[in-house]
Amino acid sequence: MSIVDAKISELKTKCLNIFVNVGLNIEDAHIIADNLLDAEMRGVPSHGLMRVKHYIQRIEKGLINLNPNVKVIKETGALLLIDGDNGLGQIVASKVLDLCMAHSEDFGVSVATVRNSNHFGTCGYYTRKAASKGFYSMVQSNAGPTMAPWGGKDPLLGTNPLSISFPASDFDDFTLDIAVSATAKGKIRSYERENKKIPLGWAQDKDGFDTTDPTKAIEGTILPMGGHKGYGLAIAVDALCGGLNLGNFSYETESVTKATKIAGTGHFFLTIKIEKLVPIGEFENHIGNWFHKMKSSSKRDGVDEIIIPGEIENSFMKTNEISISIQEETLNEIEELSLALNKAKK
Amino acid sequence: MSIVDAKISELKTKCLNIFVNVGLNIEDAHIIADNLLDAEMRGVPSHGLMRVKHYIQRIEKGLINLNPNVKVIKETGALLLIDGDNGLGQIVASKVLDLCMAHSEDFGVSVATVRNSNHFGTCGYYTRKAASKGFYSMVQSNAGPTMAPWGGKDPLLGTNPLSISFPASDFDDFTLDIAVSATAKGKIRSYERENKKIPLGWAQDKDGFDTTDPTKAIEGTILPMGGHKGYGLAIAVDALCGGLNLGNFSYETESVTKATKIAGTGHFFLTIKIEKLVPIGEFENHIGNWFHKMKSSSKRDGVDEIIIPGEIENSFMKTNEISISIQEETLNEIEELSLALNKAKK
Repeated sequence: MSIVDAKISELKTKCLNIFVNVGLNIEDAHIIADNLLDAEMRGVPSHGLMRVKHYIQRIEKGLINLNPNVKVIKETGALLLIDGDNGLGQIVASKVLDLCMAHSEDFGVSVATVRNSNHFGTCGYYTRKAASKGFYSMVQSNAGPTMAPWGGKDPLLGTNPLSISFPASDFDDFTLDIAVSATAKGKIRSYERENKKIPLGWAQDKDGFDTTDPTKAIEGTILPMGGHKGYGLAIAVDALCGGLNLGNFSYETESVTKATKIAGTGHFFLTIKIEKLVPIGEFENHIGNWFHKMKSSSKRDGVDEIIIPGEIENSFMKTNEISISIQEETLNEIEELSLALNKAKK
Repeated sequence: MSIVDAKISELKTKCLNIFVNVGLNIEDAHIIADNLLDAEMRGVPSHGLMRVKHYIQRIEKGLINLNPNVKVIKETGALLLIDGDNGLGQIVASKVLDLCMAHSEDFGVSVATVRNSNHFGTCGYYTRKAASKGFYSMVQSNAGPTMAPWGGKDPLLGTNPLSISFPASDFDDFTLDIAVSATAKGKIRSYERENKKIPLGWAQDKDGFDTTDPTKAIEGTILPMGGHKGYGLAIAVDALCGGLNLGNFSYETESVTKATKIAGTGHFFLTIKIEKLVPIGEFENHIGNWFHKMKSSSKRDGVDEIIIPGEIENSFMKTNEISISIQEETLNEIEELSLALNKAKK
């Protein structure tokens, strides 16, 4: 598969064109395009433009509400229960993040649990935004079932990603954006394409036996990170995203790569306004000094640099401001979708 | 080392006697005794009575404030910055948990960051208490430096434990009480005593090489759970416990097993009042049905039962109501301390 260069401005135009032609208003199309291009620019293509075809597939099958009424169902001070009205995840999540940040101005902190939403891209997109505005934040989502309970073999849990960010002086921000699984299904697929074995501990086959065969792993289930600890974290995330709002748990939601029913994805947001605790400048100095101490500490043999979580993605963002490298296949998909939808419109 | 039976009521009396004789008021002594015995009864002796000697050592060296004025330094709605005034961790944490739960009645949610505290026992003790009162909660602490940054070899991070609990119908509660490290130092010590090799991935020696030798591991640093993910979580916890309050990061705190300086430990509390979102009965049914679905799902070969996090500790609590099995060494320590302090008092 070949990698080609593409200009951000041109990718954005194509992306906007696609989503407007399929029925989104221009403001919402901008939110989607910004979110997907952010992932591309930060070197996370698994959450970038390769998702466009999945979103369009779901939209064309009528499984997404293009004009959602994102509604606060219940509000107690700093705590919000929100219904996403089956909108695209990015549209829902951007509104919820704004609401949480506003509530944190009044209450110092805010928490929202969101039901009836969809795939919203990376969790880190939202927590980084909050960090740039002076918040410590955590954002989580449940996800289609791909993991079994610890000791089991039925897919009853999602990889349930979570991101945590906070501002960090000359590092811009700390961002830990992870799934609670040992790996991602996409990563197993790339091993399959390259005809390589996967490491033990990533997945089990459908009969619950550890496997290094990527094809058997895809038919089976992904294992949690850190064994029973990742299993517990997956439950804890699902309880926030699908429990506290009486919505769907992961096993009841549908993965974005399929399109047979409404996804019913749930999210969780926590924002803490740092300035309401301590002066933000002092906080950032405190963090910055600590991070520099870690970066300049002794390294293991063969390690060039100690990396602060988020540092690599932030440095990618700087080098990718004008253009990115992208898989030709993804670029072709975007161009074909753009042309096909232009035609359909006429 | 032999295991002996001991009555809870007798252990409690001895424990109260020790802490009152060393200068605590009776209410605070009850808080400590209840916390340590709770760990014993739940089958977590590493956080039980074997800690008494460490606490007493620190108290006798004047490193603990026995009459702390646990003070709210800053309060914005639901967000609290608290100074523990160098009190015993259990005394500080119990007050903070009560404050957070009270604030959640008004604001739905509450968050507290605590500086200048000490070792507070298990995190799960506090989250289980909150679960029994209808809260989803998360409690974290930083801890003496025992982990290196990912790729490094200097101990600049703690094992930074966290617990998450919520009420769960006939399961009583879900409780995930974990360190973000691959293992605990105590566990490596027990391998050393038994002259056994530790698994690869638990620790590195002081020069940063992976090791299966427990003695070299103790001189070195513990590895994070799930590689870079656990490393990131350790930073995220430290930022809440020592960053948001401009207090100490793990590397600046002292482990409870030493006694050379004031510990300066930090904690973090998040409590969400579930009833402020949805009826608690409906929440518990929703969770209970899901847990039963997981428990009755297909098991891997050789697995007898799928376990919900916290289930084992909760069942231990039921069988250990009257008496527990305890290491003779720990029992002797308690008895000797109790006698010695009685004498000193006279």
